[in-house]
Amino acid sequence: MTAIDPVPADLVFDASGLLPAIIQDDETGDVLMLAWMDREAIRRTITTGRVTFWSRSRREYWRKGDTSGHRQYVRSVAADCDGDTLLVRVIQIGAACHTGTRTCFTDREIPALVGDPEATAD
Amino acid sequence: MTAIDPVPADLVFDASGLLPAIIQDDETGDVLMLAWMDREAIRRTITTGRVTFWSRSRREYWRKGDTSGHRQYVRSVAADCDGDTLLVRVIQIGAACHTGTRTCFTDREIPALVGDPEATAD
Repeated sequence: MTAIDPVPADLVFDASGLLPAIIQDDETGDVLMLAWMDREAIRRTITTGRVTFWSRSRREYWRKGDTSGHRQYVRSVAADCDGDTLLVRVIQIGAACHTGTRTCFTDREIPALVGDPEATAD
Repeated sequence: MTAIDPVPADLVFDASGLLPAIIQDDETGDVLMLAWMDREAIRRTITTGRVTFWSRSRREYWRKGDTSGHRQYVRSVAADCDGDTLLVRVIQIGAACHTGTRTCFTDREIPALVGDPEATAD
């Protein structure tokens, strides 16, 4: 018998065999972080209920929370229209960011002009 | 006088000079899409109030909505802890996805085991 691969065949990986995974808090809707997955990290994520990444810097699988305790439990996984990005909704234990902030984007705002949908020109 | 660059100097771009930008609906919290920006696309995004990407397939700047009418107006921009990802919160006009769905992840769920934070083993 041939094992069935639970990872969809039509996902699109970059030249390094990776795609970006956006991690979103399923309860608050906050975007917590972005990290990278290869096919095996996706397989582990969707078959175990625990989010697993590929660490580009350490070149190893990284099951979120194994060191920090700040685990991510899978609620849902979706691909985007091009199949080259994942959105993973999770239950986040503790802080998502290794710096201790709740999300990796907390307190890291870049000053930007706010757009106005009511403006006539654009 | 030297012009001041509004794009933070400490952002980190990949080998192609790009970084991923997560686009989130500021009103609903929905993650709408992910696309790519180079330094100039970021400059345009934060100085004009309209989200602008670099299209890797067309190799040109792509101000979201110029063709479709589905414009994205900037509400806030933040970098992540590594400076290699942006989170852009927007007012989305119409559908974010070129396929017509509200987000690029709508109706594209991948079957996954749901994790259980109450389980004792993990």
